[in-house]
Amino acid sequence: MMDGSLLNQPLAAVDTPALVVDYDLLMANIQRLQTACDAAGLQLRPHIKAHKTPEVAHLQLQAGAVGVTAAKLGEAEVMATAGVPDIFIANQIVGETKLRRLVALARRVPKLSVAVDSLEVAAPMSEALTAAGQTLDILIEVDHGAARCGVPPEETVAFAQALAPLQGLRLVGLMAYAARSYVGDWEQRRAFCRQEGAELAALAGELRAAGFPITRLSGGSTPAGPCYEPNCGLTEIRSGTYCLNDHNQVDLGTCTRAEVAATVLATVISRPAPDRAILDAGTKALDQQVGKLTAGYGWLLDPPDANVVKINDEHGYLDERGASLRVGDKVRIIPPRICTCLNLYDWMVVVQEGRVRDIWRIAARGRNT
Amino acid sequence: MMDGSLLNQPLAAVDTPALVVDYDLLMANIQRLQTACDAAGLQLRPHIKAHKTPEVAHLQLQAGAVGVTAAKLGEAEVMATAGVPDIFIANQIVGETKLRRLVALARRVPKLSVAVDSLEVAAPMSEALTAAGQTLDILIEVDHGAARCGVPPEETVAFAQALAPLQGLRLVGLMAYAARSYVGDWEQRRAFCRQEGAELAALAGELRAAGFPITRLSGGSTPAGPCYEPNCGLTEIRSGTYCLNDHNQVDLGTCTRAEVAATVLATVISRPAPDRAILDAGTKALDQQVGKLTAGYGWLLDPPDANVVKINDEHGYLDERGASLRVGDKVRIIPPRICTCLNLYDWMVVVQEGRVRDIWRIAARGRNT
Repeated sequence: MMDGSLLNQPLAAVDTPALVVDYDLLMANIQRLQTACDAAGLQLRPHIKAHKTPEVAHLQLQAGAVGVTAAKLGEAEVMATAGVPDIFIANQIVGETKLRRLVALARRVPKLSVAVDSLEVAAPMSEALTAAGQTLDILIEVDHGAARCGVPPEETVAFAQALAPLQGLRLVGLMAYAARSYVGDWEQRRAFCRQEGAELAALAGELRAAGFPITRLSGGSTPAGPCYEPNCGLTEIRSGTYCLNDHNQVDLGTCTRAEVAATVLATVISRPAPDRAILDAGTKALDQQVGKLTAGYGWLLDPPDANVVKINDEHGYLDERGASLRVGDKVRIIPPRICTCLNLYDWMVVVQEGRVRDIWRIAARGRNT
Repeated sequence: MMDGSLLNQPLAAVDTPALVVDYDLLMANIQRLQTACDAAGLQLRPHIKAHKTPEVAHLQLQAGAVGVTAAKLGEAEVMATAGVPDIFIANQIVGETKLRRLVALARRVPKLSVAVDSLEVAAPMSEALTAAGQTLDILIEVDHGAARCGVPPEETVAFAQALAPLQGLRLVGLMAYAARSYVGDWEQRRAFCRQEGAELAALAGELRAAGFPITRLSGGSTPAGPCYEPNCGLTEIRSGTYCLNDHNQVDLGTCTRAEVAATVLATVISRPAPDRAILDAGTKALDQQVGKLTAGYGWLLDPPDANVVKINDEHGYLDERGASLRVGDKVRIIPPRICTCLNLYDWMVVVQEGRVRDIWRIAARGRNT
């Protein structure tokens, strides 16, 4: 993958299974959401968990993103090494080893911020930062209906007051995870976005009244991304999947099939029966999540009505809708979910007009600590 | 992971999420199946897809395994580099690039064999090997009820005759994938094994009568592994999961919880509600397969009745059965399926009596071409 022999070759020259990203679609997707955010007066801080790749992060920043979001310290470390100057870790950082890494990371990232949702997380972080003579921007993670991590909204002011004595932590904002925006109806999503912005803005008002200078209100998701209106209350959103898209997003109506930039290239390796074609892409190439709304493990670009109906570790099954395929044929498959699918690959093959434009290392893959 | 600082440290010093393998349990699992195979007069050719790690392959060979099985050419290349002299690729190898790699691999592996199930696979392979002046052992993949790849049993002799003119391919045996052995009842599994052995032996008899010197009959799986009787008809089995085990194997009754050698070490990062504990291990650390027979995404060693009831990319959810856990606590989780879980990690942390004995690179992870 690294030797350059594939550059400018046709896609058919790429060995399978491979993760293929269409450069023009990637650029269009990046620009589309950036334009929507600009129109809504929102900063875009893309979540890199969907692509895990420095080259993509830089394209997002060049298009106007204010910085990036990471789920894990390991992902943030990769982005820091790639020169990204503004990184938000939207997760709870727990444990001695991680706090040592956080201190080291804070030294080299001009603008680093993290989420906290408990004193059990914040107090050791404060100790570690104070011992290192550092101060870090923190955002309180608020549970805005996700029922995952997060402080209940009604306890946010009390939590901010409990944080106040902790040195080394500078409370600058609130973050919420927009789990409830994953609905197919655009009007419902717009309603969610209005509610999310209004409720976080109200909480920020309470915090300001209590003396906390809140400047960042971070929300959003890929389905929510294009649904914000000007003055929605948030200051930034953290959409991730939008740059590549996947079949779940098609199902949700967030994008069309023609806007999916990432596919898995696979080869037909066996045609043992008229109603069965076997691909060399299984759970270790497509991921094993069933489509959110449409049953299936992957959808072929061509034949356009074929989908992967069953999956083993190294085999994908097509039914009679793959009947036109022969052993050796290569097919492109839209995965159900790009975040988990891409996480299986070390490289992405970037194509433009059917030829290999570049090969990018998915440098943050596996950086899950 | 590579710097040695964790060696001899207690498990609690390991950052999370991490894939942890108990050395003594690993050795016991390897020995148990080897003993069963020896008693049944079967050769054991472990499938490395479950561990993907040269160190584990060498332990299996030292215990008496005849060689290893790989699902992909990329896995076989890693095992070849690790010095494994006898490798079987139990899959269809298709495409020009792969055939070039196969020729290169055959040059450096003393005993390499591959599966074929069609002339579309065999003919280009024959051409490539012949051009390189090589001959390779092949096994016909027979569809023994898996309905995946494979020649229908009744067409096997005709297929062997069609292969006969192809230079560079030496037909030495048959392989089948024991999909139907994944049942919980031991008597059913024993019956399956008797049937599998008898049917493949009968096919081999037909092939020998037609002039083909068949010497290898390859079958098996982890559930089937301990169920073969002497003179079962097979010459080798290809069990893979048995060395590490997982919760699906516990569900099938193949092993007990105490015999599961591989767990995911995770940390509690949030306790936002009395009935909710959030772990730093989600789909990218545990894999997202639901348990085969028991609902859940992962089962804790302690508290022993707790399981991961819901999963996001970087978060695992425990319900009220995790109520005793606090932020910062580390837990060990039995994953539903080790093959896909382990595939998410670059390293395995090998522990013995609670301390880090070694750290092994999962060198064949991601080698899915």
